[in-house]
Amino acid sequence: MNQNAWPLEGIAYGGDYNPEQWPRETWREDVALMREAGVTLVSVGIFSWALLETEEGVFDFGWLDELLELLHAGGIRVDLGTPTASPPAWFFAKHPDARVVDRNGVVQGFGSRGMASPSSPAYRAASVRIATELAKRYAEHPAVVMWHVHNEYGVPVGEDYSEQSAVAFRRWLEERYGDLDGLNRAWGTAFWGQRYGSWEHVGVPAAAASVVNPAQRLDFARFTDHQLRQCFLAERDAIRAHAAQPITTNFMANQSWTTDLWKWGEVVDIVADDSYPWAADTENEIGLAIASDLSRSVGGGDPWILMEHSTSAVNWQPRNVAKRAGEMARNSLAHLGRGADAVLFFQWRASRSGAEKFHSAMIPHAGTDSRLWREVVDLGAKLGRLGELQGSRVRADVALLWDFESFWAQDLEWRPSVELDHKERVRAFYERLWRDGITVDFALPTHDLSRYALVVAPAQYLLTAEGGANLTRYVEQGGTLLVSFFSGIVDENDAVHAGGFGAPLAEVLGVKVEEFLPLREGVTTTVRWRGRELAADAWQEDLRVTTAEVLGVHRDGPGENGAAITRNVHGAGAAWYLSTRLDADGLAAVMAEVYADAGLAPAGQPDGVELVTRRGPDADYLIAINHRDTAAQLAASGRELLTDTPVEGVLELPGGTVAVVRTPRDPLGGTA
Amino acid sequence: MNQNAWPLEGIAYGGDYNPEQWPRETWREDVALMREAGVTLVSVGIFSWALLETEEGVFDFGWLDELLELLHAGGIRVDLGTPTASPPAWFFAKHPDARVVDRNGVVQGFGSRGMASPSSPAYRAASVRIATELAKRYAEHPAVVMWHVHNEYGVPVGEDYSEQSAVAFRRWLEERYGDLDGLNRAWGTAFWGQRYGSWEHVGVPAAAASVVNPAQRLDFARFTDHQLRQCFLAERDAIRAHAAQPITTNFMANQSWTTDLWKWGEVVDIVADDSYPWAADTENEIGLAIASDLSRSVGGGDPWILMEHSTSAVNWQPRNVAKRAGEMARNSLAHLGRGADAVLFFQWRASRSGAEKFHSAMIPHAGTDSRLWREVVDLGAKLGRLGELQGSRVRADVALLWDFESFWAQDLEWRPSVELDHKERVRAFYERLWRDGITVDFALPTHDLSRYALVVAPAQYLLTAEGGANLTRYVEQGGTLLVSFFSGIVDENDAVHAGGFGAPLAEVLGVKVEEFLPLREGVTTTVRWRGRELAADAWQEDLRVTTAEVLGVHRDGPGENGAAITRNVHGAGAAWYLSTRLDADGLAAVMAEVYADAGLAPAGQPDGVELVTRRGPDADYLIAINHRDTAAQLAASGRELLTDTPVEGVLELPGGTVAVVRTPRDPLGGTA
Amino acid sequence: MNQNAWPLEGIAYGGDYNPEQWPRETWREDVALMREAGVTLVSVGIFSWALLETEEGVFDFGWLDELLELLHAGGIRVDLGTPTASPPAWFFAKHPDARVVDRNGVVQGFGSRGMASPSSPAYRAASVRIATELAKRYAEHPAVVMWHVHNEYGVPVGEDYSEQSAVAFRRWLEERYGDLDGLNRAWGTAFWGQRYGSWEHVGVPAAAASVVNPAQRLDFARFTDHQLRQCFLAERDAIRAHAAQPITTNFMANQSWTTDLWKWGEVVDIVADDSYPWAADTENEIGLAIASDLSRSVGGGDPWILMEHSTSAVNWQPRNVAKRAGEMARNSLAHLGRGADAVLFFQWRASRSGAEKFHSAMIPHAGTDSRLWREVVDLGAKLGRLGELQGSRVRADVALLWDFESFWAQDLEWRPSVELDHKERVRAFYERLWRDGITVDFALPTHDLSRYALVVAPAQYLLTAEGGANLTRYVEQGGTLLVSFFSGIVDENDAVHAGGFGAPLAEVLGVKVEEFLPLREGVTTTVRWRGRELAADAWQEDLRVTTAEVLGVHRDGPGENGAAITRNVHGAGAAWYLSTRLDADGLAAVMAEVYADAGLAPAGQPDGVELVTRRGPDADYLIAINHRDTAAQLAASGRELLTDTPVEGVLELPGGTVAVVRTPRDPLGGTA
Repeated sequence: MNQNAWPLEGIAYGGDYNPEQWPRETWREDVALMREAGVTLVSVGIFSWALLETEEGVFDFGWLDELLELLHAGGIRVDLGTPTASPPAWFFAKHPDARVVDRNGVVQGFGSRGMASPSSPAYRAASVRIATELAKRYAEHPAVVMWHVHNEYGVPVGEDYSEQSAVAFRRWLEERYGDLDGLNRAWGTAFWGQRYGSWEHVGVPAAAASVVNPAQRLDFARFTDHQLRQCFLAERDAIRAHAAQPITTNFMANQSWTTDLWKWGEVVDIVADDSYPWAADTENEIGLAIASDLSRSVGGGDPWILMEHSTSAVNWQPRNVAKRAGEMARNSLAHLGRGADAVLFFQWRASRSGAEKFHSAMIPHAGTDSRLWREVVDLGAKLGRLGELQGSRVRADVALLWDFESFWAQDLEWRPSVELDHKERVRAFYERLWRDGITVDFALPTHDLSRYALVVAPAQYLLTAEGGANLTRYVEQGGTLLVSFFSGIVDENDAVHAGGFGAPLAEVLGVKVEEFLPLREGVTTTVRWRGRELAADAWQEDLRVTTAEVLGVHRDGPGENGAAITRNVHGAGAAWYLSTRLDADGLAAVMAEVYADAGLAPAGQPDGVELVTRRGPDADYLIAINHRDTAAQLAASGRELLTDTPVEGVLELPGGTVAVVRTPRDPLGGTA
Repeated sequence: MNQNAWPLEGIAYGGDYNPEQWPRETWREDVALMREAGVTLVSVGIFSWALLETEEGVFDFGWLDELLELLHAGGIRVDLGTPTASPPAWFFAKHPDARVVDRNGVVQGFGSRGMASPSSPAYRAASVRIATELAKRYAEHPAVVMWHVHNEYGVPVGEDYSEQSAVAFRRWLEERYGDLDGLNRAWGTAFWGQRYGSWEHVGVPAAAASVVNPAQRLDFARFTDHQLRQCFLAERDAIRAHAAQPITTNFMANQSWTTDLWKWGEVVDIVADDSYPWAADTENEIGLAIASDLSRSVGGGDPWILMEHSTSAVNWQPRNVAKRAGEMARNSLAHLGRGADAVLFFQWRASRSGAEKFHSAMIPHAGTDSRLWREVVDLGAKLGRLGELQGSRVRADVALLWDFESFWAQDLEWRPSVELDHKERVRAFYERLWRDGITVDFALPTHDLSRYALVVAPAQYLLTAEGGANLTRYVEQGGTLLVSFFSGIVDENDAVHAGGFGAPLAEVLGVKVEEFLPLREGVTTTVRWRGRELAADAWQEDLRVTTAEVLGVHRDGPGENGAAITRNVHGAGAAWYLSTRLDADGLAAVMAEVYADAGLAPAGQPDGVELVTRRGPDADYLIAINHRDTAAQLAASGRELLTDTPVEGVLELPGGTVAVVRTPRDPLGGTA
Repeated sequence: MNQNAWPLEGIAYGGDYNPEQWPRETWREDVALMREAGVTLVSVGIFSWALLETEEGVFDFGWLDELLELLHAGGIRVDLGTPTASPPAWFFAKHPDARVVDRNGVVQGFGSRGMASPSSPAYRAASVRIATELAKRYAEHPAVVMWHVHNEYGVPVGEDYSEQSAVAFRRWLEERYGDLDGLNRAWGTAFWGQRYGSWEHVGVPAAAASVVNPAQRLDFARFTDHQLRQCFLAERDAIRAHAAQPITTNFMANQSWTTDLWKWGEVVDIVADDSYPWAADTENEIGLAIASDLSRSVGGGDPWILMEHSTSAVNWQPRNVAKRAGEMARNSLAHLGRGADAVLFFQWRASRSGAEKFHSAMIPHAGTDSRLWREVVDLGAKLGRLGELQGSRVRADVALLWDFESFWAQDLEWRPSVELDHKERVRAFYERLWRDGITVDFALPTHDLSRYALVVAPAQYLLTAEGGANLTRYVEQGGTLLVSFFSGIVDENDAVHAGGFGAPLAEVLGVKVEEFLPLREGVTTTVRWRGRELAADAWQEDLRVTTAEVLGVHRDGPGENGAAITRNVHGAGAAWYLSTRLDADGLAAVMAEVYADAGLAPAGQPDGVELVTRRGPDADYLIAINHRDTAAQLAASGRELLTDTPVEGVLELPGGTVAVVRTPRDPLGGTA
């Protein structure tokens, strides 16, 4: 929250509201139903460009004036969107070179969703113009409490291989490298004879006969993120010139990897996130928790807005599983538990037409005489009882490294094994911590990590010398570090570190990686560990142990008899290295010892119960969510806020329910 | 048969004849062998454009004159093709903008098969010119009994994203909607900000960053079908200006979904169909029967022409399984049983060169000293004994809804589950009826259905208010209706019905669909039904039952304890609803009760025996086909025509054979 | 070896050396380490175009002068590359129409690897210019012993659908066919109406609505190979104008099928090959042996150069499995055993940057204190002990047909079954022979085969009349021929032979193929053979046996009771036909009898031991490689050269090791 205070009272509730799809009479009904449901905030105007600017420079704000009056009269606050994620048909007709082009040169046509080329000057000008007009007109409107720029930057398309993009990429590279020697060095163009003698010869990494220079592709990913953010900044600044409300845009944490959210977190006033878990995952509450923790982390721990989630099924997955009774509330409160102070949905009323008509909404196609509507009303009531949590903060003892640049680099072609999957590794370590009730912040390797008892690096393929030094210092000063394989391999230009694989971590880990030993498909191996055998697959390494203690040894596979798991005391701390992919049980066994090293203790809650605590000025709030059908018992004391009942030592948590227990803290900081 | 009587005597026999691939001496041998095989009709000239019009406007009919004389002298009748499915190289060289362009903008080159853009004025002019020249020259030729326009419209390509197509699409939309408001409303362009302010901004639904407006895509499918038909009509009318013979074109029923055969059935003089079952299906006789019943149905029940099928393997499937001894005859007579009065093959003589040289033919590469040739000769003899069936008609008691517009809409992206597959559902219901020996007509929901005892709607996703009202009226007036899930969801613009899912059927079914409950992959469920349990998968629904009786209840899954199968008495009839995907046994159990409701009785024939009856002026003809290797017995009386032997109560049907039993009808309409 | 003698002494050792990626100080270290490892030959300059010609016509040879001096001073010989596989950025900027275009019209951009259009006049001129400059400057350099033109022609891209390619294709076709009638006849353009009336209308077989004319595609494959070779010839001749050293280019035998290596073998002075076995194959030593035997065979049996292989993992496979201890040496010596007199690697020092940084090298990222470097040094020492093998030759008793034109034709679309896979069939027959210790030459059906006891045709789909006559003559004169199914089907234009499938082989095999009987997916069948049953799948045929003896009969499947395996005595020899796909055991059973017919005896070595013999002027050299972990014993006498120890009757071969046993031959040609 860079500039503005939280613009709402209590926990906000509502969703995207697209009244342009409905006749005026429906608008009045909508406001009445919003009040019934306890809705306090709606996002408006996100796809309205063609209705607000009907031709280039011709504006029609009448309908929006009317709508905002109606909402204001009903006491509903407005998060006012700029409609720049969907330029009108006239825009593309007039500026056909503003269309996005894919890697194969296919021009992306009109008729769908998705912005223009972020490098198009015409688009930049048009988006600033509409944002300016909106800001000038509604800066003082009493209903408008926030600005919502664009929609989901980078989704459905971020990379653009158009000529406009190539021009901008060259300019960006000139700024980054200064001269061509710098670029040639960074990109290693001596390999495969790619040396550039003129800036004009440098292009976007479009389709080629074989794999394109990885440093070029990595820079193009950085550039893509940068260009999208420049679009945001241009609109943000245009609004700020006229309006004082906080400005945000909605992220897609743990869903889209196009934007480097660490950088975006610095330029929005409030972080907002859209959360759409993967329905095929029967424990998709874990992915949801990752997204929430990431949203909070990129905002520096400040309260954030759950800008979109769904009341039930979405429409774009292979099988759009509906949420069962109670699941919407569990999802909403799980976000809240991890720091969201606003719970909004896409969208208020289900669309009859268009690509997303099968996406659930607060008012379903079946209308208000429906299970869904009744749960929507009930959730509004629940959130109304939790107003005092607004502004309280989540405290985490563990930092898990999440580095978009490293992920971009690792996702390029021709890595040692297709099993090297940063998403899978992050989930594996996060999941263990989630099951143990240990709350996680995400962090970059260059962050100040000193407040964490444990830092986990699940997939830090790209690690700069600076990042490696920071992690080393963290351990020296007493921290516990856990590093998974294929970390510290390349520098910021995707070049293997001088000194070999893992060089920046060699000192702190006390091992050197001599060679990767990827396993063939389907091969499983075992690791001897504390007298038992842990199952592993996918990966081994030929490790040369320098100062570390070997705790696990490969029983078989190409690395047979070599070190698999090591621990190195370094300075006041200890650094662990896992050089293979353990299964969940094996990982649990190792993590138990790592916890002990770090002075952490698992919560010991029943399986399927999610625990997280928010800390207010004078009380802690335990959010406990039972994701199973069977009842659970937890140790807790205080007052359960949803039912307004006392909890004395034991919290009874029926299957599928959520409890929020306030426990006052004594003035010394402990709980009473 | 709109305009002309059936132009042949008895059951016609023959195939595509492409003599241009062979020297003159082979032509004489061909005619002699045709006579040996009993061939009476050949299709000529289908790919001859480059030989007939050697340059633009330069014609060479000499070789065709000679060929027709030769055939005429041999007593072989000719179905004369227009060669417009394969414009010559000179055409595309002169009119490069007449080439088809795919969704990604890739221009489809020469050197294969496939017509020009159906929207190209140059193509339209050229095809009318060659059709006119042919008609003028051969209108009075005594060998020519029919005209065969083009070849398999819509295959291998129908949709065209060229600029010529965009121009025509705009014109078509202007005619359909009158003004832009109409288009914006129909397409729901308020969603995702797609409102059009100028006709010139409307385009074809080419590749875009995300999913394209579904109403636009649905209209583009309608437009594609319309443009193809305009090509046919232009040629048809050009021929009709000079020639009186019936005019047809060959469909691909149950193989291609590009053309709306209901509309095509109205514009051809005789329906003709190409039939290529899927070899991987070990019961591909069922798909064949669907294609036959559909061909007959779109022609209003009139006799139709099996224009192409194969003597043995085709060449374009992954594994082109050869037909076993007797299989060609079973296939041919199965088509005949379902109304075909002509049995033709692609092609007379196997091509040595080109893309289809591994496609079987009447004369295989192995020559006439072969099993295949002997069976071809035998089949000719068999058909010669069935001349009296010509003109007899198939009677069906059941209508199964088959709606191309609904299929087009359902096949668009972002549906609730990838398991929603209209082909699979149509096959499942048809297959049950086929196994029970109950003959089916296909129909549209807006057709007069009053003559059917039962109407089945396996996959009527798109259902207009008019269609819903017609089905409701059908039940009111005493009919039995069986509706499968995901029906009545959207209107003609792919917009969800006001009133929610299934609204047009809510009254007749006595249920409302509150929410879809798609199942995760691999999940199976059970339905309690009449004291037993039926297996299901893929789909459940949250049903609100209004007036229906609940006959089946979900035992598990997200819809646990909710209604799965219902029956609603409405007026004088009853309407069933199946809201889940039962397996074959479960469906059989339910269908047995539906039959009882409709007053239908299964034939009770042995497994693998196909039964269908054609009705002549004074006799019924039972066609019985044993698809198994083991002998079967059937109740029948009359005279078996292929063997010319009496049948007295019991028909012995050896494995792999076919019988055609004539049973005279008494003057009152019953069988004697 | 067309023109020049082997330019080296002993077995050469070394690899690609790309010093432009490293600072000058590393160069000196490199030479010292090369000497430590026994390196004698390095390939230089393969990707250096942008450094040697910094702008069009501006050359900078200073660094290369310096490098060659350094290598020369260190006693390292140089294989000097022309850098034309990677034209500089300035080249493509100046000649954008020289870029390769794929079948869908996508232009292949810069930033990767891969040559310009081989049909581009600008590219041809530029590549001749740089080759000429290099030759002029270094023709007399004492370090330069060989020229290495380009790199892996045809990889990663060979086919080019650019306009420049279309122009050249038309010219090539005019030369091939003389007139359009010839082309129309050869391509069978009467099918699907493709007749050409003007050369200008003939194009490349780009994307089309359906399958493109197969004869056109086959000619385009020939043309592609021809154009690539013209590029080579232009450079070769440019070098030869100034320099006398032998000229080669590196093939990719058994990996790339773009170039017809039989034709390339005729135009290089020495065959060179790059060998990268497929890591997922746990017996990839068999594929390696195929590649080696093919390299030797296309060079007429002369010594060849293993130009590239890997010390450990490559980087472009899904799972880049590292080589285990000893595996590099086994691989190197396996190539040597099959005729390679030079053992080189890609590359000397692992690249820190670029697409192949995870490719292993002689100096790994871990540096010289590593297992890999120690094995590299050890291998250099081993090869130093084998100098006397240089120039000795491999003798093979069996010819296995390998015909690129047939493979190109078979790989086109719409074949009878997707199971028809020439690679699989070649491997199956080769593997059996490899396990039996029987050495194979590859050959074309038109070659003089009289010196072979057995000729095997695993997949000779395309077989000209001339080829069929040659095979027939071979048998007549006493040879033994084994033919697998789907052979002799089409002529050089992919046209089915007049006379039907297999016509050119009908006389020698004594069978006619009446019809193909592809099996459905997953179907297995059995063949009765000598009182036992052999398992088969994928394919059967309806065979008409004329003069052959039926030895195996189908027990089931569509060909039930028909002939499966036949043997036909023809003249002084015998010809076998296998018309189904037997499993490995079944094939072994049949091959045992075929061996007996041919007078061959399996070596009977332990499983996993590879045997091959090179014959020197007065001694035989047995190379025995134990690919298993367990020790083996072999009968052998002589002297083991790697350990310099005598072998008296029994050779002990520990797990994972290689032995090279010299056995002197008596003057009569037998072994002493």
